[in-house]
Amino acid sequence: MSNFDTLIQDLVIANRILAREEVVDAYGHISTRHPDDPNRFLIARSLAPELVGREDIVELDLDGQPVRDEHRSLYLERFIHAAIFAARPDVTAVVHAHAEDTLPFGIADGTKLRPVIHSGSFIGTEVPVWDIADNFGDTNLLVTNMAQATDLARCLGGNSVALMRGHGFAAAARSLIEVVRLSVYLPRNARALSRARQLGGEIKYLSEGEIEARNRGYSPYSVETWRTWEYWANRAGCGHLLTQPNDSHSRPAKG
Amino acid sequence: MSNFDTLIQDLVIANRILAREEVVDAYGHISTRHPDDPNRFLIARSLAPELVGREDIVELDLDGQPVRDEHRSLYLERFIHAAIFAARPDVTAVVHAHAEDTLPFGIADGTKLRPVIHSGSFIGTEVPVWDIADNFGDTNLLVTNMAQATDLARCLGGNSVALMRGHGFAAAARSLIEVVRLSVYLPRNARALSRARQLGGEIKYLSEGEIEARNRGYSPYSVETWRTWEYWANRAGCGHLLTQPNDSHSRPAKG
Amino acid sequence: MSNFDTLIQDLVIANRILAREEVVDAYGHISTRHPDDPNRFLIARSLAPELVGREDIVELDLDGQPVRDEHRSLYLERFIHAAIFAARPDVTAVVHAHAEDTLPFGIADGTKLRPVIHSGSFIGTEVPVWDIADNFGDTNLLVTNMAQATDLARCLGGNSVALMRGHGFAAAARSLIEVVRLSVYLPRNARALSRARQLGGEIKYLSEGEIEARNRGYSPYSVETWRTWEYWANRAGCGHLLTQPNDSHSRPAKG
Amino acid sequence: MSNFDTLIQDLVIANRILAREEVVDAYGHISTRHPDDPNRFLIARSLAPELVGREDIVELDLDGQPVRDEHRSLYLERFIHAAIFAARPDVTAVVHAHAEDTLPFGIADGTKLRPVIHSGSFIGTEVPVWDIADNFGDTNLLVTNMAQATDLARCLGGNSVALMRGHGFAAAARSLIEVVRLSVYLPRNARALSRARQLGGEIKYLSEGEIEARNRGYSPYSVETWRTWEYWANRAGCGHLLTQPNDSHSRPAKG
Repeated sequence: MSNFDTLIQDLVIANRILAREEVVDAYGHISTRHPDDPNRFLIARSLAPELVGREDIVELDLDGQPVRDEHRSLYLERFIHAAIFAARPDVTAVVHAHAEDTLPFGIADGTKLRPVIHSGSFIGTEVPVWDIADNFGDTNLLVTNMAQATDLARCLGGNSVALMRGHGFAAAARSLIEVVRLSVYLPRNARALSRARQLGGEIKYLSEGEIEARNRGYSPYSVETWRTWEYWANRAGCGHLLTQPNDSHSRPAKG
Repeated sequence: MSNFDTLIQDLVIANRILAREEVVDAYGHISTRHPDDPNRFLIARSLAPELVGREDIVELDLDGQPVRDEHRSLYLERFIHAAIFAARPDVTAVVHAHAEDTLPFGIADGTKLRPVIHSGSFIGTEVPVWDIADNFGDTNLLVTNMAQATDLARCLGGNSVALMRGHGFAAAARSLIEVVRLSVYLPRNARALSRARQLGGEIKYLSEGEIEARNRGYSPYSVETWRTWEYWANRAGCGHLLTQPNDSHSRPAKG
Repeated sequence: MSNFDTLIQDLVIANRILAREEVVDAYGHISTRHPDDPNRFLIARSLAPELVGREDIVELDLDGQPVRDEHRSLYLERFIHAAIFAARPDVTAVVHAHAEDTLPFGIADGTKLRPVIHSGSFIGTEVPVWDIADNFGDTNLLVTNMAQATDLARCLGGNSVALMRGHGFAAAARSLIEVVRLSVYLPRNARALSRARQLGGEIKYLSEGEIEARNRGYSPYSVETWRTWEYWANRAGCGHLLTQPNDSHSRPAKG
Repeated sequence: MSNFDTLIQDLVIANRILAREEVVDAYGHISTRHPDDPNRFLIARSLAPELVGREDIVELDLDGQPVRDEHRSLYLERFIHAAIFAARPDVTAVVHAHAEDTLPFGIADGTKLRPVIHSGSFIGTEVPVWDIADNFGDTNLLVTNMAQATDLARCLGGNSVALMRGHGFAAAARSLIEVVRLSVYLPRNARALSRARQLGGEIKYLSEGEIEARNRGYSPYSVETWRTWEYWANRAGCGHLLTQPNDSHSRPAKG
C-alpha cells in the first residue's frame, strides 16, 4: 500500500478513535496535511467521524476550498484546519472538537488549563483561550470563514491547543498519531485538574522541564506511542486497518 | 409516505433518540401538534419512550383528552403538552423529561441556568423555574390536571425551557427536530455550567446577540441540524426510519 | 403459577434489576418476607445478584439461619434483613447495598441526605446514619451477627432508609417493587442533592406534605409503578419473567 | 494443572480484570513473584492488559531484566515491580496503574487519601505521595530505571499504596487476588472521599482498628474474597479460566 493510501487509512482510523474515545460526537473533525503538497490537506466530508470511510476523504486547499469538484457537503468549520496549516508549517495534523470536559476551562477564568498528569504534557505549557466575540462581536460561535479561522490560529500561536470559548478546542501536532493522542488526553487532564482543585491545597503542575522531557524527539512510532494507537484502534473496531510499523515482533492487530 | 405518516415516524424516532441520549428513561415524553388541526396533538400512550412504535401514538385534544375511544393508559402528565400547545400557537413540539443534570438547577437557587456553550443557545436567554408548591401547596409534584399545567405554561411564558422544581423540565420548540436538539443539549449545557462554576472566576455566558445569531431563521433541515438528527437516529437504531430531506448527495442512513 | 412461585420469580427479577441499575455489584442483597410465615424470609444464597436464579433462593428465619439444611454459603450480612423483619412488622422487603453515590452522605456530616427530587420522596423525611463504631468499637464494618443487626434496625426506626457509615445503606419497604424503586432512586436523589449544593444558594427540599402526598396509598401495581418495574425488568433482560398485572391492554413484556 | 500454570492463568485473569474494571487501559501492569524463586517475577510483555494471554507472560529478575532471551518489547516501567519485590519480601504481587480517580490526590495536597469506605481499608492507614522530581529533577515522569524505582519503593515503605505525582499509583500486596482487590477499590475510595469533602462538615475516616480488623488473617480464598474474584473474572469474560477453590458447592463459573 502506498504512503498516501496508508495516510488515508490512518485518517479513517483517527476519525474512528476520536469518536470511540468520545472526543467528538456528531461534530468535530480531524485533518492531515497532504504528504505531497503542503498547500493542501485531507479531511472527511461533512459526516460524523464515527461513520467516516476512505471514500469520504476530500482534499481542500488552505482557503478551505475543495481542490476538485465536490458536490457533497463539507464541514462548516473546515477553515480552522486551513488557517492552522497556513500559519504553522510545522503542523501536520489538526483536530477541532467539543469534548465536554474541556468546555468549563473556556467558560470560567478562575483556573488555567495546564498539564497536571504526565499524559497531559502534550498539551504544552500554555493553552490560550480564544473568544470569537473579541474581534467579531455577536456571532453563532462557529468558525465559518478564513478571517475568523486566521484569528483563531493567531491566538493559538506556537502552542498545541487553543480553547474556543463556549465551543470546544483546536489542537495541532506534528503527526496524526500525536494530534489524536493529544486530543484524547486533553479531556483527561482537564478532569484531573478540575478534581484536584476540589481537594484544596496547592496544585503541582508539570514543570516546563518535564513537559520538554516528555516531548523531546519526534517519535510517533515509538513502542509506547504505537501501543496506545494500536489499543485505541482496536477499541474503535479498526484493528484490521492498522499498518504495522517495521517490528516483526509486535502483536498482530486484533480486531 | 404521506406528510402525516412521516410525522408519526419522526415522532417515533424522536422518542427513541431521547431515550438513547438519556434525556428520558421510563418517564418523560414528547409530543407534536397535529399538522392538520392545531387543537390536537400526537403523543405516545403511557409507555417508556424506548419502546414506542407507530401503533402507540394517540391523538389528544388541548384538555389532554383522547380524541377517539382509547382504553390504553395515557401519560399522567400529558396535560403539560396540552397546556403549552394551548398557550403557545408558535410551538409545534413539546418535551417533558427528568434529565438528571438539569435537576440541581431547579433545586438550588445559587446559579441560574443560562447558555454557556454554543449548543446550549437553544435554551434561550432565560430559563424560569416553576415550583408547583407556589400555587398548589403540597402535591405529589406531578402535573396531573389542566390547572397545574396551565400554571406551568404561564411560568414558561415565551421561553423555550422551564425547569420544574425537584422534578425535571418542560421544553417547547417550533419543530420535533428542534425540541429534541434542545432537550439533548440542555443537560450538556447544565453540566458545563456546573463544572465551570467549580473552576472559580467569572463565567462567560452566551450574549443575547449570540443566542439570537444561533437561532435566526427557521431551518430544521439545515445540513448541520440534519446531520445531528441522522447521527442520533442511527445511534438509537432508527436509521432505517429516517425520511431523507431532498438532498441526493447525503449519505444513505446507516442502521 | 402460584402466589409463592410468583414471589420467587419477582425476587429473581428484583436481584437482576438492582444489579443492572448498579445499586449492587458483587455485594448487596434483597429479601422478601415469606408470604405464609412472617417469621421467615426469602433471600438468595451468597451470590452476586446479577447471577441469581430461582434455584438460588433460600429460606431463613428471623435469626438469619436457614430453615432447611443448607450447605451452600449464605450472605455474611443476612442478619440485616432478619433484624429489620423482626423489628418492623410493616416491612415486607429489605435491601442492603453499597451504591457509590450514597456513600459520601454516610461519611461527611455537612449535608443530611433528604429528598430533593420527586422520585426521592420514597426515602422518607429522615435518613438516619448508623455508625457501627458507636456501640461496637473497631470492627470490620460488616454486620455479621444479630446484635449488630438489631442495633442497625433500632437506628433505622420507622424510617425507610438508614445509611451505614463507610459502608452503604439498608432500605425497607412494604413490597419488593417498592424497595427496589426506593433503592434505585436513592443514589439518584443523592447525586441531585450533591450537585445542587455545588451551585450555591438555598436548597429546596421536598416538604413533609409532598413526601406524604407521594407515599399515600398502598399501590405497588399502579400504572406508573408497574411501568417502571416493567422497564427495569426489560433492561435487566428479565422481561420474560414478568407476571402481568390484570390489565389486558398493557404491552406484552419485550425481552 | 500445576501450581505454576494456575498462577500464570490467574495472572492473565488479573490483567483482564484490571482492564475491565478500568483500573488500567493501554497502560498499567500487574506482576506476581515467581513461586519457586523470590528473585524473579512474572509479568506480561509490553501489551495492553486487556490483550494479555498466557503466551505473553515473561520472567524478569529483580533488576527488571528478562531471565531468558526475549526479543519482544517489555514494559518501560517494569522496574517498579522489580524494586518493590526487592525491597519487600512480604509482597507477592504488584500493580502500577494510572486510574483516573486517584490522580487528583497525587496532584493537590489539600486532602490526604485515606480509607473512608470499608472496601478501601486495603489501602492501609497511610498512602504516601511520591514525586519523582524531588530526587530526579525534570524527567518524563516515567520510572525507567532501578534508581528511580528504588526511590519509589523507599517512599512506599511498608505501605500498600504509593501515589505517584501526576502519574498514577503503585500497589503491593501478599497475593494476586489481594492486589487486584486493592487496586479496584482504591479509585472507589478516592471518589467517595472526594465527594464526601464536597458535602462539607467532618469526615469520618476508617480508624486504625477498623483497618486492622479488616486486614487480619491471610485469606485470599475466603468466601467473600473469592466471590468478588469470581464476579470480576466473569465480567472480564474470563470465567472459564477460573481455578475453583476446593468448595464443591460453589457455583460453576458462568462465562
